[in-house]
Amino acid sequence: MGKNVGILAMDIYFPPTCIQQEVLEAHDGASKGKYTIGLGQDCMAFCTEVEDVISMSLTVVTSLFEKYGIDPKQIGRLEVGSETVIDKSKSIKTFLMQIFEKSGNTDIEGVDSTNACYGGTAALFNCVNWVESSSWDGRYGLVVCTDSAVYAEGPARPTGGAAAIAILIGPDAPISFESKIRGSHMAHVYDFYKPNLASEYPVVDGKLSQTCYLIALDSCYKQLCNKYEKLKGKQFSLSDAEYFVFHSPYNKLVQKSFSRLLYGDFLRNASSIDEVAKEKLGPFSTLSGDESYQSRDLEKVTQQLAKPLYDAKVQPTTLLPKQVGNMYTASLYAAFASLIHNKHSTLAGKRVLLFSYGSGSTATMFSLQFREGQHPFSLSNIATVMDVTRKLKSRHEFPPEKFVETMKLMEHRYGAKDFVTSKDISLLSPGTYYLTEVDSMYRRFYAKKDGDSKTGTPCENGSLANGQ
Amino acid sequence: MGKNVGILAMDIYFPPTCIQQEVLEAHDGASKGKYTIGLGQDCMAFCTEVEDVISMSLTVVTSLFEKYGIDPKQIGRLEVGSETVIDKSKSIKTFLMQIFEKSGNTDIEGVDSTNACYGGTAALFNCVNWVESSSWDGRYGLVVCTDSAVYAEGPARPTGGAAAIAILIGPDAPISFESKIRGSHMAHVYDFYKPNLASEYPVVDGKLSQTCYLIALDSCYKQLCNKYEKLKGKQFSLSDAEYFVFHSPYNKLVQKSFSRLLYGDFLRNASSIDEVAKEKLGPFSTLSGDESYQSRDLEKVTQQLAKPLYDAKVQPTTLLPKQVGNMYTASLYAAFASLIHNKHSTLAGKRVLLFSYGSGSTATMFSLQFREGQHPFSLSNIATVMDVTRKLKSRHEFPPEKFVETMKLMEHRYGAKDFVTSKDISLLSPGTYYLTEVDSMYRRFYAKKDGDSKTGTPCENGSLANGQ
Repeated sequence: MGKNVGILAMDIYFPPTCIQQEVLEAHDGASKGKYTIGLGQDCMAFCTEVEDVISMSLTVVTSLFEKYGIDPKQIGRLEVGSETVIDKSKSIKTFLMQIFEKSGNTDIEGVDSTNACYGGTAALFNCVNWVESSSWDGRYGLVVCTDSAVYAEGPARPTGGAAAIAILIGPDAPISFESKIRGSHMAHVYDFYKPNLASEYPVVDGKLSQTCYLIALDSCYKQLCNKYEKLKGKQFSLSDAEYFVFHSPYNKLVQKSFSRLLYGDFLRNASSIDEVAKEKLGPFSTLSGDESYQSRDLEKVTQQLAKPLYDAKVQPTTLLPKQVGNMYTASLYAAFASLIHNKHSTLAGKRVLLFSYGSGSTATMFSLQFREGQHPFSLSNIATVMDVTRKLKSRHEFPPEKFVETMKLMEHRYGAKDFVTSKDISLLSPGTYYLTEVDSMYRRFYAKKDGDSKTGTPCENGSLANGQ
Repeated sequence: MGKNVGILAMDIYFPPTCIQQEVLEAHDGASKGKYTIGLGQDCMAFCTEVEDVISMSLTVVTSLFEKYGIDPKQIGRLEVGSETVIDKSKSIKTFLMQIFEKSGNTDIEGVDSTNACYGGTAALFNCVNWVESSSWDGRYGLVVCTDSAVYAEGPARPTGGAAAIAILIGPDAPISFESKIRGSHMAHVYDFYKPNLASEYPVVDGKLSQTCYLIALDSCYKQLCNKYEKLKGKQFSLSDAEYFVFHSPYNKLVQKSFSRLLYGDFLRNASSIDEVAKEKLGPFSTLSGDESYQSRDLEKVTQQLAKPLYDAKVQPTTLLPKQVGNMYTASLYAAFASLIHNKHSTLAGKRVLLFSYGSGSTATMFSLQFREGQHPFSLSNIATVMDVTRKLKSRHEFPPEKFVETMKLMEHRYGAKDFVTSKDISLLSPGTYYLTEVDSMYRRFYAKKDGDSKTGTPCENGSLANGQ
């Protein structure tokens, strides 16, 4: 069995096309600050007609292989997490097998894991467990989280986003799992779901979804604290992890979530709560669960009390979720990538807690430990490879009219067949995969933007033929 | 880490409604024997409007818990394999969480695994790996394979079927994994897929799908043989496993598949091939792969040569796939259940190879070892609990007109909202869950047929409320 199994390497891709939340806010006639302060979001990425969850995942996997010097033959398991369904039977993983074709490596276990935004976490756990199991054959595991989050016109539209993340799994990792410190909460709820099969848009009850998220958060934290106490013989509190990373539909919910953990510490009488906090929270100690989720006063007091801790323990994780938007399965790992980007030089020896939530619902809170690691699998190299600042800076901001037009086209194209795309790839970076055609049999064709080309002609060997 | 991790217990459910292939053949105006001999199928089960993949999985999990005396609190992981999409985001696993509500156990990892008929195998591997990993907490894993296979009117329609299987996973199992003896083949192909999101029916290229299946079979067998040889220092051949279990879209393909393995043994010059066989296969030794998949002569010769071995090593696995039809993710495990049903008293100490195939494509061949085990987790008790003979005998055969009418109604209901079912549960056994309503928000409501009732009124506490 591998030791210190965990994350060896990561890369992230998000579309270069985005819209500022401030601009969208004004265009939608929303009150000033509704998206930027009310939701806490800065900017939102989206796919244009040449990108989708398959092209984004082809791009990010190819990039990870190149930048870390991974031979496709070294991969023994590939798991995809996604809730953006393009085909109800054929997995995104099978599309990614195109990358492995040349190497002749077809012996790669794993398929797609699905439950809303949680699929990436399920894929991650599956890969880690594989490396720790008797069926591990010494090769790497690879996890891909890829999603395009789009909403019908209306209040949920600014909570979209799009990205793909690739995570390489193996032993002796700079980011390893503390597998015994973990709590899950799984329940049958209808907070956000996609029963309208022909539409890309979900059915969402925003308020219910937020409550379900917080119920799951409380339950997972309680489970995790109980397990920690049994394992270590001492209480767990917010002081026992350096950073907290949350699934981030929008930043405001992350703020609420962190302060909710502080309230949890207060209820468990944990050491992280000082006398001032105890006094301020005293009046809320007898609230029922339901009451506590509804109480605006409690929210205000806990957020105020949690502010300094939030700035230290959460704020460094918020860059990408605020700048790119909700990336569904990739959201939590984009927040985690933000932390590595911001703090890679000081993370070694630290513990971080992650909270993954998928509507429906499935949720887990789990613990990771950092070590510096060995090049290329070091924290500093992961930050270098991800190159977040450059990627954010080189984006193209769309005016709202063009954004709305793009959404309309995408709506029309979802589930459609028999069309070719504009192949306008002027905004894509070299090395990016893009959709060229969906034929009359719904078969999808992709090409790769040539490394040297700025005109957008795909190079011949970058063009991926259909499997059969 | 658990030792001898594998299958502790199983149960199977299939709808009590079915149609004889001979009857359908006549009704469709197909030539006599086209379905019964050409496809090798006897009968086909299907869901009526009161059953679906969710109700079937609720039924089979509840039944397994009751019959083996499992407390819902004892489950630490629940994984579902399915390709019958009712919701693109909310997993079937979350519907099953209703069973655990009363016990207060919400700390259950796992979601749905999806790639055509392979999802159940992915779920199974994930559960087994979990028990062998450092994140295992001592509880059982539970795998559910549930699918309703339906096809548009035409040549593929007789290859439908429906079932749900529940498999309990843990250490010290009567059926354990030989994890190192395993080969996978994953590729990007469009042999069978579901890109028309609004339709329950797949897009199928029957001929291509058969070739892809056989290519994957050859590749997996080769991988497995190579690994066996490295591990054990001797060649693997058909003689080294007592039984071979195949994913069974229709029995004819299983016959072809087994004889294909014999051809593989011939090409590798394995000990299972005697002089007579060598002579008969000699003329085919120089065929290219492609040629060999197309050659009718080769097929004829290999099937003839393989016949005695097929009768001994495969025939005992074919009962349920021939009687129930293609059960997609449940198909392989229904074949495996047939083997236990037929041979439970003589399996101890034997090895069986299983071949799982999901279009798209993903495939794995893997090895299991039998031991008698301890009650309730013994081979004989598994056979008793599954009670296959009674379940097959107590079915209700539909005339073709009524079958076609049912298919039409189901087609209409797929992806629909705002309807109530007839609640005619006269054909269901007591303890069976059934669909009562889909409301205007697409929320699905189920009830359980009372143990004593023959009239079909659900008992009050059997009625499952909507999660929120």
